[in-house]
Amino acid sequence: MSRVVTFGEIMMRLASPLGERFEQTKNFEVVYGGAEANVAVAIAKYGGKSRFVSKVSADQFGDAAIGNIGVHGVDTNYVLKDIGRLGKYFYEYGYSQRPSKVIYDRDNSVFANSKPGDFDWEEVFSDATWFHFTGITPALSDGLIETCEVALREAKKRGITVSCDLNYRSRLWSKEKARKVMTSLMNNIDVLFANEEDSESVFGIKAEGTNVSDGRLSVEGYRDVATKLRDTFDLKAVAISLRESINANFNKWSAALLTGGEFIVSTKYDINIIDRVGGGDAFAAGLIFGLDNSWEPLKSLEFGVAASCLKHTIKGDFNIVSRDEVEKLLGGNASGRVVR
Amino acid sequence: MSRVVTFGEIMMRLASPLGERFEQTKNFEVVYGGAEANVAVAIAKYGGKSRFVSKVSADQFGDAAIGNIGVHGVDTNYVLKDIGRLGKYFYEYGYSQRPSKVIYDRDNSVFANSKPGDFDWEEVFSDATWFHFTGITPALSDGLIETCEVALREAKKRGITVSCDLNYRSRLWSKEKARKVMTSLMNNIDVLFANEEDSESVFGIKAEGTNVSDGRLSVEGYRDVATKLRDTFDLKAVAISLRESINANFNKWSAALLTGGEFIVSTKYDINIIDRVGGGDAFAAGLIFGLDNSWEPLKSLEFGVAASCLKHTIKGDFNIVSRDEVEKLLGGNASGRVVR
Amino acid sequence: MSRVVTFGEIMMRLASPLGERFEQTKNFEVVYGGAEANVAVAIAKYGGKSRFVSKVSADQFGDAAIGNIGVHGVDTNYVLKDIGRLGKYFYEYGYSQRPSKVIYDRDNSVFANSKPGDFDWEEVFSDATWFHFTGITPALSDGLIETCEVALREAKKRGITVSCDLNYRSRLWSKEKARKVMTSLMNNIDVLFANEEDSESVFGIKAEGTNVSDGRLSVEGYRDVATKLRDTFDLKAVAISLRESINANFNKWSAALLTGGEFIVSTKYDINIIDRVGGGDAFAAGLIFGLDNSWEPLKSLEFGVAASCLKHTIKGDFNIVSRDEVEKLLGGNASGRVVR
Amino acid sequence: MSRVVTFGEIMMRLASPLGERFEQTKNFEVVYGGAEANVAVAIAKYGGKSRFVSKVSADQFGDAAIGNIGVHGVDTNYVLKDIGRLGKYFYEYGYSQRPSKVIYDRDNSVFANSKPGDFDWEEVFSDATWFHFTGITPALSDGLIETCEVALREAKKRGITVSCDLNYRSRLWSKEKARKVMTSLMNNIDVLFANEEDSESVFGIKAEGTNVSDGRLSVEGYRDVATKLRDTFDLKAVAISLRESINANFNKWSAALLTGGEFIVSTKYDINIIDRVGGGDAFAAGLIFGLDNSWEPLKSLEFGVAASCLKHTIKGDFNIVSRDEVEKLLGGNASGRVVR
Amino acid sequence: MSRVVTFGEIMMRLASPLGERFEQTKNFEVVYGGAEANVAVAIAKYGGKSRFVSKVSADQFGDAAIGNIGVHGVDTNYVLKDIGRLGKYFYEYGYSQRPSKVIYDRDNSVFANSKPGDFDWEEVFSDATWFHFTGITPALSDGLIETCEVALREAKKRGITVSCDLNYRSRLWSKEKARKVMTSLMNNIDVLFANEEDSESVFGIKAEGTNVSDGRLSVEGYRDVATKLRDTFDLKAVAISLRESINANFNKWSAALLTGGEFIVSTKYDINIIDRVGGGDAFAAGLIFGLDNSWEPLKSLEFGVAASCLKHTIKGDFNIVSRDEVEKLLGGNASGRVVR
Amino acid sequence: MSRVVTFGEIMMRLASPLGERFEQTKNFEVVYGGAEANVAVAIAKYGGKSRFVSKVSADQFGDAAIGNIGVHGVDTNYVLKDIGRLGKYFYEYGYSQRPSKVIYDRDNSVFANSKPGDFDWEEVFSDATWFHFTGITPALSDGLIETCEVALREAKKRGITVSCDLNYRSRLWSKEKARKVMTSLMNNIDVLFANEEDSESVFGIKAEGTNVSDGRLSVEGYRDVATKLRDTFDLKAVAISLRESINANFNKWSAALLTGGEFIVSTKYDINIIDRVGGGDAFAAGLIFGLDNSWEPLKSLEFGVAASCLKHTIKGDFNIVSRDEVEKLLGGNASGRVVR
Repeated sequence: MSRVVTFGEIMMRLASPLGERFEQTKNFEVVYGGAEANVAVAIAKYGGKSRFVSKVSADQFGDAAIGNIGVHGVDTNYVLKDIGRLGKYFYEYGYSQRPSKVIYDRDNSVFANSKPGDFDWEEVFSDATWFHFTGITPALSDGLIETCEVALREAKKRGITVSCDLNYRSRLWSKEKARKVMTSLMNNIDVLFANEEDSESVFGIKAEGTNVSDGRLSVEGYRDVATKLRDTFDLKAVAISLRESINANFNKWSAALLTGGEFIVSTKYDINIIDRVGGGDAFAAGLIFGLDNSWEPLKSLEFGVAASCLKHTIKGDFNIVSRDEVEKLLGGNASGRVVR
Repeated sequence: MSRVVTFGEIMMRLASPLGERFEQTKNFEVVYGGAEANVAVAIAKYGGKSRFVSKVSADQFGDAAIGNIGVHGVDTNYVLKDIGRLGKYFYEYGYSQRPSKVIYDRDNSVFANSKPGDFDWEEVFSDATWFHFTGITPALSDGLIETCEVALREAKKRGITVSCDLNYRSRLWSKEKARKVMTSLMNNIDVLFANEEDSESVFGIKAEGTNVSDGRLSVEGYRDVATKLRDTFDLKAVAISLRESINANFNKWSAALLTGGEFIVSTKYDINIIDRVGGGDAFAAGLIFGLDNSWEPLKSLEFGVAASCLKHTIKGDFNIVSRDEVEKLLGGNASGRVVR
Repeated sequence: MSRVVTFGEIMMRLASPLGERFEQTKNFEVVYGGAEANVAVAIAKYGGKSRFVSKVSADQFGDAAIGNIGVHGVDTNYVLKDIGRLGKYFYEYGYSQRPSKVIYDRDNSVFANSKPGDFDWEEVFSDATWFHFTGITPALSDGLIETCEVALREAKKRGITVSCDLNYRSRLWSKEKARKVMTSLMNNIDVLFANEEDSESVFGIKAEGTNVSDGRLSVEGYRDVATKLRDTFDLKAVAISLRESINANFNKWSAALLTGGEFIVSTKYDINIIDRVGGGDAFAAGLIFGLDNSWEPLKSLEFGVAASCLKHTIKGDFNIVSRDEVEKLLGGNASGRVVR
Repeated sequence: MSRVVTFGEIMMRLASPLGERFEQTKNFEVVYGGAEANVAVAIAKYGGKSRFVSKVSADQFGDAAIGNIGVHGVDTNYVLKDIGRLGKYFYEYGYSQRPSKVIYDRDNSVFANSKPGDFDWEEVFSDATWFHFTGITPALSDGLIETCEVALREAKKRGITVSCDLNYRSRLWSKEKARKVMTSLMNNIDVLFANEEDSESVFGIKAEGTNVSDGRLSVEGYRDVATKLRDTFDLKAVAISLRESINANFNKWSAALLTGGEFIVSTKYDINIIDRVGGGDAFAAGLIFGLDNSWEPLKSLEFGVAASCLKHTIKGDFNIVSRDEVEKLLGGNASGRVVR
Repeated sequence: MSRVVTFGEIMMRLASPLGERFEQTKNFEVVYGGAEANVAVAIAKYGGKSRFVSKVSADQFGDAAIGNIGVHGVDTNYVLKDIGRLGKYFYEYGYSQRPSKVIYDRDNSVFANSKPGDFDWEEVFSDATWFHFTGITPALSDGLIETCEVALREAKKRGITVSCDLNYRSRLWSKEKARKVMTSLMNNIDVLFANEEDSESVFGIKAEGTNVSDGRLSVEGYRDVATKLRDTFDLKAVAISLRESINANFNKWSAALLTGGEFIVSTKYDINIIDRVGGGDAFAAGLIFGLDNSWEPLKSLEFGVAASCLKHTIKGDFNIVSRDEVEKLLGGNASGRVVR
Repeated sequence: MSRVVTFGEIMMRLASPLGERFEQTKNFEVVYGGAEANVAVAIAKYGGKSRFVSKVSADQFGDAAIGNIGVHGVDTNYVLKDIGRLGKYFYEYGYSQRPSKVIYDRDNSVFANSKPGDFDWEEVFSDATWFHFTGITPALSDGLIETCEVALREAKKRGITVSCDLNYRSRLWSKEKARKVMTSLMNNIDVLFANEEDSESVFGIKAEGTNVSDGRLSVEGYRDVATKLRDTFDLKAVAISLRESINANFNKWSAALLTGGEFIVSTKYDINIIDRVGGGDAFAAGLIFGLDNSWEPLKSLEFGVAASCLKHTIKGDFNIVSRDEVEKLLGGNASGRVVR
């Protein structure tokens, strides 16, 4: 039986209602989320076993953060508590040409201030088959860079598959530091999730003929990017999400996967968006869920993309959909007819 | 002066807000509705006279159900009350590829448990010109099958036009039982509303080359279906709604009508959807309103389709639009410009 | 340093939530707005200096109206207070084929009842470089026609640029009266904002081949309209907004500007709409902001159109966007990617 | 079988949420109400038959006003519609020492502008046993003074009992005008509802030793006031509501009734208030309901007071309580235990 | 280490907002709860270990029910799922003299239809020290009577302390049946929770001089009731909650405990109520938590009463307070000063 | 003409709705406030002139903070902006025995990190007659201690009256540091606001026979405290607020003032509380407003207490009441009767 462990920060997200700018609103809708927490929740919702490892504030907000993951079936026994603050971020839903906006308020969180020795990887990995984190975690503090190094070593020692989503955030660290750190971490990574923008920002690896801010993506060029990434870092697989942002509430969404010598591209979905946060995490979760259960690469990829497609229609960071619902979409039922 | 009587169940509908799944929500928006109640309300809003016949719980929810129909001008003097429960259903708005979802909680409602002798058809039909019900009503209980038989005989005896919307619901009864019961009831029906899916499910009558779950509908094949239905059951008219579900929030919507030898097809609308529940009922109401007022078939059909188009943009089961508003849309004003 | 003065009514706007018709709703969302107030707020948000001149009720609603403009940096020192009522309007959001709906409840407001002598134009114009009003103001009362005449004379005397947005409202006055009054006022106007519909309604000047209610607009014909308007009234510039209403929640939006002999047409945006009220005002504000700061006509025009595009995605009458955000859109970032 | 007819204005009420002042709020909760409409609704909820006569705007707000009364079972067939505006009022909930606040916005409503000839009293009174109105109605316009005179004459001609609630509103008319008009109308009135404040304001009749703004009321003095009112105007009965306002959310509430020579005083309730609007109307409705059904005066009085007590705990102008619930309270169940 | 197991139904609760009656509301606030679930959650919040045993619907509502208990740390591994409906109840908040109202809609729930063999008591009780259920569980179906018998036998066999809260619900079963069943079950019960009303309804055991509907409770008489209960059923302890309902939003609240020969009475609290549902369960949970951890009876009793006092100020069925917060109240901090 | 300058931090306040604990809520209501901002706003609302000096984040939240003060008429021209975070605090409304709860999240705010040289006191004080700050400001950082020293020197140099509210916050600094810093600052302070708790915490000056957590306050002892404070620090006046916390939603509230040799005690109010945050600031603002306008001490004191009483009934930190409303309460109208 497979068990996916993810490691990262969970934050309180405060969103103003659709159509209300931060400075107008009298109300913030609160959910909890973070890239790695999102992956853990999604896998649990798809029917898999997952464990989230983190540290939260020893107050009601930390309790809420833990509770909101645990409620979906994720094992939260290794989420530590400490005196301090929970990281937060504010979210303004974009619409049409107005982009979504994130204001981070996560400095000095208990997670960012955590120490490598805080986590008992022996126990954490006792029954694990897969370990996943993203580039956000080492970006938060030097302590976390070290913790990631420790975690990766411990995972590899146990033969656990390790995946990483690049998730470059320019507000958190410079490209230079990101490249240095991530390059070093790549030694212990088996599966890399990236999009072209992050690939270029972090590793300087890019494809020709694409212009991300235009939303025009050249699928052809991605094979090249994926191949370069695989060859550079000796990866088992490279997954690339292909988001074409037509505008803030309409995207085209697909993904590609390079495994061994094979480069496969998924179905492309036209998505009307309610909440795009966590879309990439829902994809990563779906692909990991499939691969960790030894599904065929294409089936795993299609599952991840379809699951992620549904995520875009649900409020909050988490992908609250069942495996059955994803499979209905994979089976061709994309017409949105009422299910009675 | 015409008077349309409808007979069926009215339920409490509990909907989670758009983008919130049932298991996330802290809040249900409550309205009241049901196929036949929706038709009665729509006709009253279009300016006609309608009467709704039913039975509700003898409590505050029954009062609310009655009040919410009566508030729109429907005669509710023949809505009975009894000790028991009001039927309920839960509604999750779909979006993009995520379908809308209905969870029924209507078993053992006071309406389902009603007896044929509960209703005084003599009085109910005293000034009626048209009687309408849907396939949902006999699906609810054997008692209601018998009640429908009684009502249809009484209606025919008085020369009242009888219409029925197939509305097949697989959660309520099997195809076999539906076919047996509906076939028997068809003897006393003049006008049938159907879509291809229901026609096939209930009567095994279908057109070639369509695939409902894909949302691709072949108008051509419908003439065939309608003709078969008419011929099989000796109907005066067959109305077929043509919904092309592109996704949960965007549909193409039109309808066709076979009267005598003529098969006419309406304008097709591209609809951005807020709430599709009751869309078919709004169409039936519009067509009945027209035919019962001796409008030309095409005018009646177009009125029904345009009225239904507007329904999709209004929250709740009811079509709260005036005849004047429908006629503005028929007159070509579909651009959504501000009306000041 | 430039300073734009605007003069008009500010009202309380009461909107039912999206998808709820006036007769269903239990709740009105309240904001404050009005064409000239909207222009003043937008200019302040873009980074300019603006002053709003008006009269409001001497009660909590008048306080709220003033506060809601002042909060965005508009100088409200010349908004007078008087015993009486604040004008109001009710707003029902349209969707798809269902048009947005406005019900005015603004008769006998303290502003409509204001007298020419109420306003101290000497002080109001002390540091002004531009004066803007719309055709709504003189439509409200004969007193306001006279006040507009006084204001325009005083503005011209000081060499202040004067602009007017035709904004014809058939509920407020007849075409005949509008033509008579507006024609007279045109003597002191430098820059006119119009769309074809208003141009035809007020001055009988129209282009061939357009059909406003269809949402089909012929850009070519506009050069003709603009030229006729300029020549008839000896204007320095004519700005024409080009709205193609596909439906209530999707419009195409661009504008054209005739200055001297040059007729320039802006980029056209496909807009998914949250709230279209104030869209024209956001455009006027952007163009005025540019011209008053001596930007090139094309740069000014594009700024106005892009700013207006963003307005359509924000709730309320006001365009709460910064110059920086408009320039990002002008720079090509229309894909709605998350800004972190 | 008895039938109570009431005549007056129904308005839209716009309330800011509890604790939010008018100038802070972003939201108004909307209900519909007015003194005479409230009486008609309450009687229908108690189980009686009532009819409301009025005129509303021929728009969606007028529809909503009618619908919101009709939903509770009141006959609204004699509510006329006309082009114009529906009266409105804004309501700020008081709390502790902060008083509730009403801002009227009802000038020039279609009801205030109605004409005596608009109403067909022959039909209105066809099956009526009681006619009720309040001093607010004639205060609205001279036309309504005349209409009230006509209605009272027509009622008396048919032997219908006529009641009036003084309800003096200083914002609507002066004490002088009120005294002149109300004195004249008293000739055709059988039952008068008053509190001491209004009695003094309108007729100059007062008791010693009370100070309304202090909330201290001398029951003893009321016998004197009631007797003077009865003797001056030759009334069959005088009902006096005795409100002791401890603060905005805690009142003591009772009433007294003078019939023939008997002066009876009700139970006094300590009321925690959610919404006090309509409390007096709920009392009037209860007393009328009892008297019109030939209950004993004391039983009628106690019913009215208990019904009114419950009103204070319900949002909106209407007293949505059943006769059964009032009788449970009369039976001594005032402890608020859960009813399962 | 102690572990409390509770067994009963968890329902969806649908509450109209404060001040809105069922027939007025457009909105239900949803939480999940039930007597035994409430006890399990409260114990987990106080810092203890608890396990909830039940059966829920195999749908999103069942998931939500489980998630909402699990989120607070309760072990939900023995909550089964089955096809069918989740029980529901509607809740109308009382205020002042208007009582709170519950409308059950729980017939034929999957829990009521569960079978004795569904539950694996061997596993359930593996680490349990205490078992708690209430009189509601056997009232739901004959199958559950048998299941309770089995569970009690299994618990006693393992030396687990068994407690029961009488919780008589007249809507669920007759007094006669309740007496017969509960009397039989008492053989295996150690600790009984009751109030006088239930004691009299179920066992005919009552104290003199109290009148529950008046809210006047004689503490003296309770010693007598408790003693009779103990002696009749050979109990180790009898806990009696003493609620004095002044009105729906103000109660006095205390409790008494008979253990061995000692009868102790707790502090009495004056409680301003936000939500009284679950108040008794919060008390039971606190007392069980104390006794199961071998605290002194008085300390346990006071903890239960203080914990319950806080419950009344929190929305929903669950007592979301920490042991630390209860102890602060026990330490005398009842003044409600801000905790910064 | 007087002008009051206040200096301190303004934060975003995020409050869960009444009855919802932090860990349950899905929603935070957002307002902006802080002790000194609250004083500035209240004075402006009372009709005085005020200026708020601070530093906020250079983002939309900083804009909102400024806008929300400016909207009430406070001069915000000296509120600086800087890159960084705005301070925040979370607020859970208490009720009955459950205390209100504040969780600060204000570390490292742009205000806390501000430097003495940031503020141009020459300009700030140009037209000032009074300067007010609280003990919170120097508690935030060493930089702010220095800034306070500078500001006080500059104020004294110009003959401006200086007042300080002790406002001791144990989460921000230790008693030892507070005593050292505040003792030093007292040299330049004329008027001190304190309550006994803070007086003891900071200066070790206390009265006998009071127990703050019990809510029992001995007025007699306060004369002693005030006198000691005056004599120790050579103050012109000492104001002491006397809050008796009966529970979280019911307090008794009064204040005392020592000026020269006279010790005066205000009226005591029984307050039902909606939001107690800012109550002390509303009092300070009222007293300062009176004294700065040369009112008699008693009149000033009573004004402050009455104004503060009203604050407790309004949501948010700000006291949105007019001078007229305060004077109505002072005039004896405390009964909460409806103001029409």
